[in-house]
Amino acid sequence: MSEELVGNVLVGQSGGPTAVINASIEGVIAEALNHDCIEEIYGALNGVLGILNEDFIDLAAESQQTIRGLRSTPGAALGTCRYKLKKQADFERVLEVFKAHNIRYFFYAGGNDSQDTSHKIHLEAVKRGYDMRIIGVPKTIDNDLPHTDNCPGYGSVIKYNSATVMEVGFDVSSMATDDGSCCIIEVMGRSAGWIAAGTVLAKRGNPDNPPHIILLPEIPFEEEKFLAKVKETVDAHKYCIVVVGEGIKDTDGHEVGADKTRLDAFGHPVLAGAAEELKEIIQGKMNLKTRTVLLGYAQRAAAHFASLTDTTNGFACGEAAVRAAMDGQSGQMVKIVRTTAADGSVSWSTGLQPLGDIANVEHFIPKDWISDDGFMVNEKFVEYATPLIEGEVAIPTEHGLPKYVVLEKNKVEKKLAPRA
Amino acid sequence: MSEELVGNVLVGQSGGPTAVINASIEGVIAEALNHDCIEEIYGALNGVLGILNEDFIDLAAESQQTIRGLRSTPGAALGTCRYKLKKQADFERVLEVFKAHNIRYFFYAGGNDSQDTSHKIHLEAVKRGYDMRIIGVPKTIDNDLPHTDNCPGYGSVIKYNSATVMEVGFDVSSMATDDGSCCIIEVMGRSAGWIAAGTVLAKRGNPDNPPHIILLPEIPFEEEKFLAKVKETVDAHKYCIVVVGEGIKDTDGHEVGADKTRLDAFGHPVLAGAAEELKEIIQGKMNLKTRTVLLGYAQRAAAHFASLTDTTNGFACGEAAVRAAMDGQSGQMVKIVRTTAADGSVSWSTGLQPLGDIANVEHFIPKDWISDDGFMVNEKFVEYATPLIEGEVAIPTEHGLPKYVVLEKNKVEKKLAPRA
Repeated sequence: MSEELVGNVLVGQSGGPTAVINASIEGVIAEALNHDCIEEIYGALNGVLGILNEDFIDLAAESQQTIRGLRSTPGAALGTCRYKLKKQADFERVLEVFKAHNIRYFFYAGGNDSQDTSHKIHLEAVKRGYDMRIIGVPKTIDNDLPHTDNCPGYGSVIKYNSATVMEVGFDVSSMATDDGSCCIIEVMGRSAGWIAAGTVLAKRGNPDNPPHIILLPEIPFEEEKFLAKVKETVDAHKYCIVVVGEGIKDTDGHEVGADKTRLDAFGHPVLAGAAEELKEIIQGKMNLKTRTVLLGYAQRAAAHFASLTDTTNGFACGEAAVRAAMDGQSGQMVKIVRTTAADGSVSWSTGLQPLGDIANVEHFIPKDWISDDGFMVNEKFVEYATPLIEGEVAIPTEHGLPKYVVLEKNKVEKKLAPRA
Repeated sequence: MSEELVGNVLVGQSGGPTAVINASIEGVIAEALNHDCIEEIYGALNGVLGILNEDFIDLAAESQQTIRGLRSTPGAALGTCRYKLKKQADFERVLEVFKAHNIRYFFYAGGNDSQDTSHKIHLEAVKRGYDMRIIGVPKTIDNDLPHTDNCPGYGSVIKYNSATVMEVGFDVSSMATDDGSCCIIEVMGRSAGWIAAGTVLAKRGNPDNPPHIILLPEIPFEEEKFLAKVKETVDAHKYCIVVVGEGIKDTDGHEVGADKTRLDAFGHPVLAGAAEELKEIIQGKMNLKTRTVLLGYAQRAAAHFASLTDTTNGFACGEAAVRAAMDGQSGQMVKIVRTTAADGSVSWSTGLQPLGDIANVEHFIPKDWISDDGFMVNEKFVEYATPLIEGEVAIPTEHGLPKYVVLEKNKVEKKLAPRA
């Protein structure tokens, strides 16, 4: 332990929120309170934008109740952004702001881009000889960060999506009469198919259960093969539930549902979306009644059915980030490590991986976890994913709705002139 | 009490499932077991189709565990259908099947069409002098049956949808930076706007909370007014959450998103859907980043976040149907009756309404429950809807997913030749 570096903590959130990104922030705050060398605990509003604009809030001033409530609150309580630091002037501003507020510890929860940002800020601090600790906290429903067993947010999204697939399956199967029907559920995942694949858990080991087909962005979409598989399923069960990852591409590499020839007045392509496109194909070629579900943001915000395992790991990643910094580490990302006992039970711990190993590396589903026909994932995937959705989070409710928290956001006084 | 009519019970489910339609079936079974004049308790598979085809199962043979599990299982456990009895031959067949199986009690859970079907079967039985009791059990997420305070299924769908709007609101607001963003959540409701309106509960009394705009099928859609309202909202909050009922129509009465000029090979119109159409309008005219959520079947199947009030009322409607039949009633539908005490607390009971008063009457949102600008419902609606979502149903889980039940479906031996 080398706790000699006295100063303030800054924590921020970046990219798309997850159901558990606030649990990681709670973990950072809870652990930071344990260390005397930490004087203030600040939050950056809207990620690096908040750093550039000096928009900080005082997290130690929030009530304990509020900080505790972060564990089960969706969205990013500090706000997030998609802004990328690119110019050298941006990095200089970040360091200037850090110095002005004596920020000696920076924890940034995010996905690939955000780990890259943290890495670059770390290198800038080293270059300038500014003594500080920068630790990345993993976060992404996409589960596409390398080196970590899984990414906080992923377990919760596949738990909710799997429950939804189960429930839609109960609904559609109960309406299935001889003329058959189909339901296509579109989930997130633009390049990696982890989210779509995770809905295999809805089968609960029974191959007859939905989802009957999972379309992964990793596997080129072939219309004829797909229609044959839908027909085979409807012949067997009178209904068919298809889960599609939003980013599926045809054999020419074109996104399904992204007809770029129709542009609106601002030049945006008018996207039908993968599920709508598949619906048109099925109805148009098979005359089979087809409905769609597009979960969109609902899937990553569904804290009301989050995974306890995922939430606990998300919290642990926040805690571990602070402990690593106290140990003198910097330029590292916390990773989740799985240990499987002889009896098959799984336990979780955390480790560290250099940020340079994470940034801009995308982790895909191993090829041998995908079934031969490309329409399903196999028991290797199921073994991997099953422990991630274990346990439910007891959320407080009020008048029948979840009771989530909102930060007070007491602003920290600015010390610099606004950036140019 | 006139329990002299000895014979068998038949129960069936019709139309789109709800999260609590099985709770009503559980109520029928639980109450039927209390009466000695009831010999067998049969279920009709897929509603009236099961009657025409003599597809009955023995519900008394199911385990108590399974019947208990119906309370929190989505879909229609007996199967449902959209088939309508029209021909006189159909009604004759129904009565023939009833006689063959000594069906003296028929309970049918469904919406408008199904109550009409029950009414017609009742009239046919009376005409033929076949002594039996027919009681309708209300069911529909659309909440559009008259005379009943609310319809089982409605409270659960607006509870889940409101939680989803809240959660999406936490997500989108946390990403809101100066360039603004919009999210459109499409919910069911083709002609009545009860489902869309119900998401007002997500505001929890705070006008700044989402949803910021609710588009009801009852109010003609005016693009200019809508875009102005979106702009006003984004100017104030940096983001805007819109809830749209799938059946909204423009001032000419055309459904938004139903461009009937694009037909597929089978002549189906290629529907974009209301949310997609609104997204195109907003992005194309305001250059505002817009995403959509289409909850589809997921909203009516979301038993994992069902309303305890709704589930309890659904069960009570099943029980009440049997008790009414035991009292010698027939040709009635069970209705839910609300009693509001002086302190504002609400209690629930059941009553009866002649089926002839229900069939084909659609119940719309009272005009004075809708705000002047037509983009929101007011405190009268909130007062009505709030008690419907109270309480959560504890669902059993296994490996992180809900544990729902499936009936064994022991077939009852057929006694007739197949219908022509």
